[in-house]
Amino acid sequence: MDSRKIIVSYRLPANIDTEKYATMLAVGQTTGSWDEAFPDQQAEMANYRADVLDVLPVDDKHAIARIAFPSQNTENDIPSLLTAIFGKFSLAGPARICNIELPEKYGINAQFGIEGIRKQTSIYDRPLFMGIFKPALGLKPENYATLLRTVADAGLDLIKDDEIMFNLNSAPTLDRVKACQPIIHEMNDKHGRQLLYAVNLSGRADQLVSNARQLIDAGANALLFNVFAYGFSCLEALSAHPEVNVPIFTHPALAGVLGGSTSGNNDYGIDYNILLGTLMKYAGADAVLYPASYGSLPFDHQIEMQIRDILRSADKNRTPAMPVPSAGIHPGIIGTAYQDYGNDVVLNAGSAIFDHPLGAAAGVRAFQDAWELTKSGQPVTLENANSQVLIDALKKWGEEK
Amino acid sequence: MDSRKIIVSYRLPANIDTEKYATMLAVGQTTGSWDEAFPDQQAEMANYRADVLDVLPVDDKHAIARIAFPSQNTENDIPSLLTAIFGKFSLAGPARICNIELPEKYGINAQFGIEGIRKQTSIYDRPLFMGIFKPALGLKPENYATLLRTVADAGLDLIKDDEIMFNLNSAPTLDRVKACQPIIHEMNDKHGRQLLYAVNLSGRADQLVSNARQLIDAGANALLFNVFAYGFSCLEALSAHPEVNVPIFTHPALAGVLGGSTSGNNDYGIDYNILLGTLMKYAGADAVLYPASYGSLPFDHQIEMQIRDILRSADKNRTPAMPVPSAGIHPGIIGTAYQDYGNDVVLNAGSAIFDHPLGAAAGVRAFQDAWELTKSGQPVTLENANSQVLIDALKKWGEEK
Repeated sequence: MDSRKIIVSYRLPANIDTEKYATMLAVGQTTGSWDEAFPDQQAEMANYRADVLDVLPVDDKHAIARIAFPSQNTENDIPSLLTAIFGKFSLAGPARICNIELPEKYGINAQFGIEGIRKQTSIYDRPLFMGIFKPALGLKPENYATLLRTVADAGLDLIKDDEIMFNLNSAPTLDRVKACQPIIHEMNDKHGRQLLYAVNLSGRADQLVSNARQLIDAGANALLFNVFAYGFSCLEALSAHPEVNVPIFTHPALAGVLGGSTSGNNDYGIDYNILLGTLMKYAGADAVLYPASYGSLPFDHQIEMQIRDILRSADKNRTPAMPVPSAGIHPGIIGTAYQDYGNDVVLNAGSAIFDHPLGAAAGVRAFQDAWELTKSGQPVTLENANSQVLIDALKKWGEEK
Repeated sequence: MDSRKIIVSYRLPANIDTEKYATMLAVGQTTGSWDEAFPDQQAEMANYRADVLDVLPVDDKHAIARIAFPSQNTENDIPSLLTAIFGKFSLAGPARICNIELPEKYGINAQFGIEGIRKQTSIYDRPLFMGIFKPALGLKPENYATLLRTVADAGLDLIKDDEIMFNLNSAPTLDRVKACQPIIHEMNDKHGRQLLYAVNLSGRADQLVSNARQLIDAGANALLFNVFAYGFSCLEALSAHPEVNVPIFTHPALAGVLGGSTSGNNDYGIDYNILLGTLMKYAGADAVLYPASYGSLPFDHQIEMQIRDILRSADKNRTPAMPVPSAGIHPGIIGTAYQDYGNDVVLNAGSAIFDHPLGAAAGVRAFQDAWELTKSGQPVTLENANSQVLIDALKKWGEEK
């Protein structure tokens, strides 16, 4: 592959002249048709044109066209990339982006990734467990501090804000950080390792970096960011900034607007492996949340595995990013998740920690007990469970299948 | 309507328990289920819960659920709004946002809008005509200046960059502005009115405002911005900034990723009247480009009219924004467009100006001649055309139907 080319695969409906359509796309997204107005520039213009590499049928209903774009058509970032390859054509009729291959050094590399997050948490030899503050709205900062103390003392590795916990009057973001920061220090002293609290970063694009700095100065040791709501340009600003020196966890909120149904019957939009894999990776995310296929949201297992592989991919220009399968994660899926992910994963749970029948500390311990079973090669079943906290969790959310 | 409520309408498939689904959405997007962990906070939590107002069938296949969200769940901006009303649920299964009613003072009001753009161009009594630089890639800054001189001298009102004209080595954005700015001044002196050149603003989120300032200092008198590529947060940063004191034209690039097919058969995503109307309006866009239903892109006429009405709506907190129907605009549609829009519109044409058989100046004059016919109540047909430039345009692109 020419290292200066961007190769984009578009899924097209098979009931059209796909060759012609692909050529229209390649020309329409780049030089357009051109006349002889500037004869001296003809050769130069040709350098910006995209070329159709091939158009191959995939099934009765679809063909995939691969088109090569010169990377010089972009500014080496995600917004110019997406505009250059799909800006106009997304409105032109059925076409769905199902793959993007980018040049080696494209975009931004994560500052932390898997290795950085492990170093921060001092945990190297097992999956990490993350909680999500619940309830998301209506609590005071000191309530979150109380919740945090409970789960941190039980040994939770990471916690995050819910994605709808904005800078609201009831619990301003900076106040949440200030309330939780002493607990993190206290627990660090007690347990000898640091809990990461991914604080939901919000605000206007021109103030996001300074908002992040303010939270970090107050003790925030990780950030959560709603990329699809704020824009990839905002993520890039954060991940490229040397003073935003904490891991950035990206949230998939609104991804469904761009990705639509995961049934594969979609003729528009962008596939989830690109939205939650490739684009996050090349915009510098350290850890990426996305729906787990064995969770509460409808999500395809094959897509989940593609996202995992894209995030964890590495070469000399690219650090592996941490996969964070989410939504409906509970102790009964730890065994299955371990088969899919091994150790390099953050398992992220809201209800299964904070709604555990015996309380949030029991919720954390149920995950730890489930992990002990998995580590020793036993399925996480009621039969194998040897603690009340795990038994209660498996009764409420189900055992390993 | 409670002035602190945000009313969102979701189109749901009728073949499910829509009442239950709507309740899941309202609760799931706000407080979630909550336990008795903080009994003192129960009343406060209830203040953040969304309520289902009604669920009404619209046809055999769909129902519309209207849900009221407290506006205090948001930060009074678009990113927090979208995350609050659809972040998680966009991934939960079929549901499409088809309307959003916002409190009067929500978001940001446009600095310029229709009135401001008219004042800048000194044209008050007719539709405005805008050109799009073509070809988009491969020209040098001085080539754009040459094109600009031709169309400005022929009397064009506005011109814009193509949305894929980024800050590329072949024609850096600042160099395009510097090359074009003297022409704009010269033509201003000659014609007694200012041509607006909407320069494509790009860059990283934290640098966009300073990039905009640099372009404005060099003479840029309008900006073009790819909102869906960069994010609404970036648009808000620009439209709220007192030093970004030129009209902002927003481009619909990538809107198709979020909106999908305009056929109405979409069970995911967000309707185009919201994407290109409501969200643009409340993020402070001065002028909004979108596909014209009589243009070259498939776009529904009813949706186009909804966008027009939303953009031009006004009250004491809200300035009317300028509609800019685009893509495939040519002299033969002026009469139809005038029936739909009257004077308060920018008609935006690329090929029909720059690919006119007699050259770009002839392209501009063909629009002016078509407007003279429309103004005098005559259809823009070959029979009525009384100039070679208009005859050639109508032969190439078609006459009024």
